[in-house]
Amino acid sequence: MDLASRPGVLSFAIGSPASELFPSEALAEQAARVIRTDASSLQYGLPYRPLKAQIVRLMALRGVLCTEAQIFLTSGAQQGMDLLSLLLLPPGGQVLLERTVYEGIRLATRPWRPEMLTVATDLATGMDVDEVEARLAGGARPAFLYAITDGHNPLGISLSPDKRHRLAGLARQYRMPILEDDAYGFLYYGEPPPPPLRALEEEWIFYLGSFSKILAPALRAGWVILPPPLAARLSPLKHGVDLDTPSLGHRVIAAYLEAGLLPDHLAALRAEYRRRRDTMLAALREHFPPEVRWNHPTSGIFVWAELPVGLDAAELLRTAVETESVAFSPGAIFCAGDPCGNRCLRLNFTSLSPERIEEGIQRLGRAIRVAMALAPVSLEADL
Amino acid sequence: MDLASRPGVLSFAIGSPASELFPSEALAEQAARVIRTDASSLQYGLPYRPLKAQIVRLMALRGVLCTEAQIFLTSGAQQGMDLLSLLLLPPGGQVLLERTVYEGIRLATRPWRPEMLTVATDLATGMDVDEVEARLAGGARPAFLYAITDGHNPLGISLSPDKRHRLAGLARQYRMPILEDDAYGFLYYGEPPPPPLRALEEEWIFYLGSFSKILAPALRAGWVILPPPLAARLSPLKHGVDLDTPSLGHRVIAAYLEAGLLPDHLAALRAEYRRRRDTMLAALREHFPPEVRWNHPTSGIFVWAELPVGLDAAELLRTAVETESVAFSPGAIFCAGDPCGNRCLRLNFTSLSPERIEEGIQRLGRAIRVAMALAPVSLEADL
Repeated sequence: MDLASRPGVLSFAIGSPASELFPSEALAEQAARVIRTDASSLQYGLPYRPLKAQIVRLMALRGVLCTEAQIFLTSGAQQGMDLLSLLLLPPGGQVLLERTVYEGIRLATRPWRPEMLTVATDLATGMDVDEVEARLAGGARPAFLYAITDGHNPLGISLSPDKRHRLAGLARQYRMPILEDDAYGFLYYGEPPPPPLRALEEEWIFYLGSFSKILAPALRAGWVILPPPLAARLSPLKHGVDLDTPSLGHRVIAAYLEAGLLPDHLAALRAEYRRRRDTMLAALREHFPPEVRWNHPTSGIFVWAELPVGLDAAELLRTAVETESVAFSPGAIFCAGDPCGNRCLRLNFTSLSPERIEEGIQRLGRAIRVAMALAPVSLEADL
Repeated sequence: MDLASRPGVLSFAIGSPASELFPSEALAEQAARVIRTDASSLQYGLPYRPLKAQIVRLMALRGVLCTEAQIFLTSGAQQGMDLLSLLLLPPGGQVLLERTVYEGIRLATRPWRPEMLTVATDLATGMDVDEVEARLAGGARPAFLYAITDGHNPLGISLSPDKRHRLAGLARQYRMPILEDDAYGFLYYGEPPPPPLRALEEEWIFYLGSFSKILAPALRAGWVILPPPLAARLSPLKHGVDLDTPSLGHRVIAAYLEAGLLPDHLAALRAEYRRRRDTMLAALREHFPPEVRWNHPTSGIFVWAELPVGLDAAELLRTAVETESVAFSPGAIFCAGDPCGNRCLRLNFTSLSPERIEEGIQRLGRAIRVAMALAPVSLEADL
């Protein structure tokens, strides 16, 4: 975040939505109206039921049937991970997750010093479910499995339909909770993806949703869908971590949704993000050496690229910032198991304009060529 | 919160500021302006430095000298307690606190199953510092001591100047962190209270501030003042619990402070809260049986009352809600050690208008008289 904020640096490092696409005018109007007309918007308060009602309707678009009683409002999906770790994970307990995975789940669970059981990820179909099954059959009893169904962070993958069914079945069979992180489920660039795991299994899938990527991160609004008895147990835990729900942000979002503004906004986001993804993929073809490989995400906000053997992404980051004023997230950040991702780059394609994406990838391509010229490089990349 | 929200119930239970005193118009204007003119107000972002600069100036009014590098922005003081517990408290470690104390500190520390070392509180001068010293001299090594310097929640006490000096000295001598919760430090109703502990000791006092009581809870904004190396260590912990700072609320508050609006607002709050406190004290004299005792807080937002021996506050709450539609917080909620506070009531005097305070205390007085008529009551109260 510090790096990305340096003046002049073109950064692909942070998973930020496009600031210029925020519906600022509508949110400014709603915020002013809500504050002026409803003093409870500034006060301590119970979780705001009209927002829960709107989330029920939103989830139906994703193929998920749920009730208000199953919804627990949070300050973003990350707080959902923190609270569910508090609820489910005993000190030293097991967590099952992909070797390459969103670093926030490690940060959320770290206070409990869990045993991290990791599985591989297939770059076409997602999490290795055979390996999950083998772990469980072998006696592993994780407090939960963490899965990102669509727009995987950092890998940009959507889980195959077959694997969705198998994972839901394993959750049932082994009575294993799955934390399903669906922060990117509404951001797809072709056909809508299949429904998430929560649509296949109600009791064992704890769904994490967020308005950060589809509306605005600073409103700090997310939700968990889980069985009502567990939702009730999250309340005192939330009291302990930050006392109260951010009433104002939640009321502003509810008003925005009630005004029916989200569908058009989502359509505009998808169109523009598709354009930016395509710009990045074209720029990668044009400016990156042929020895570098990358994937073609159909959802989410990241491209995952791999450097040839002999290069190190963390080293490349240092020189890329210094010599070309361009930044990205080095893959090792996302490594939850044995060292991994050392040659990998996570490239966000939503936060910069197409022109700056083109310029940034050109700069990064130059930095990679210089690094390749200086390093003994194998032409075998094994992405 | 559920109880207090029932229609028709006059509630003294929640520590809410007065909704009708929120500077709604100014906040609505600032919110709309900030959202329209600054897209970063809706985006992920670094902690907002102009707010830190304003907090430095605010703290000077409280007699505390600090720098921006010592300030860590949080989502309210409660999150400061959560993060400092994560930072300081090992599983099973010791925490030193008053037997009767804000329940949020227990909730924040509970995941670590700490050993709670409790000390008594003198209702005139605050925490029993002799007992603190004896504990430390006897070998106790708490991860931290928790103290509320002014407007104690729930007891309504301000710590005496002599005890402030002694506590600061013990923190230095025993290298023991003190979490100083000063959420009520700006709400005083006579002479300004002496400066908090942080003004007496910089290295071992970790100060918790909040805009919830002096501006608006729903903006979810607080701060910790602590040595910069420790402030840096809070960042990844905050990333794990809720990822990001609520940029919008922090920018709105900074704009409000920059406009110079806080001093007049604080003066208005103090004048009105003093009036409400006096209304409550007068109503208590008029409507409560003489066997009930209570204190006369000079700061904060609570009166603490004690029923005669033979009555139980939790039972009284049930009948008071049912028969008189009036609510309060029973004292046992705030008990951190051996059972305590069973006969005590915490009465908030800021959230209701003077007329409703008068009416509510009258109702509560009736409920107490009925309970006394039904119970074998000793006339010895030992407040």
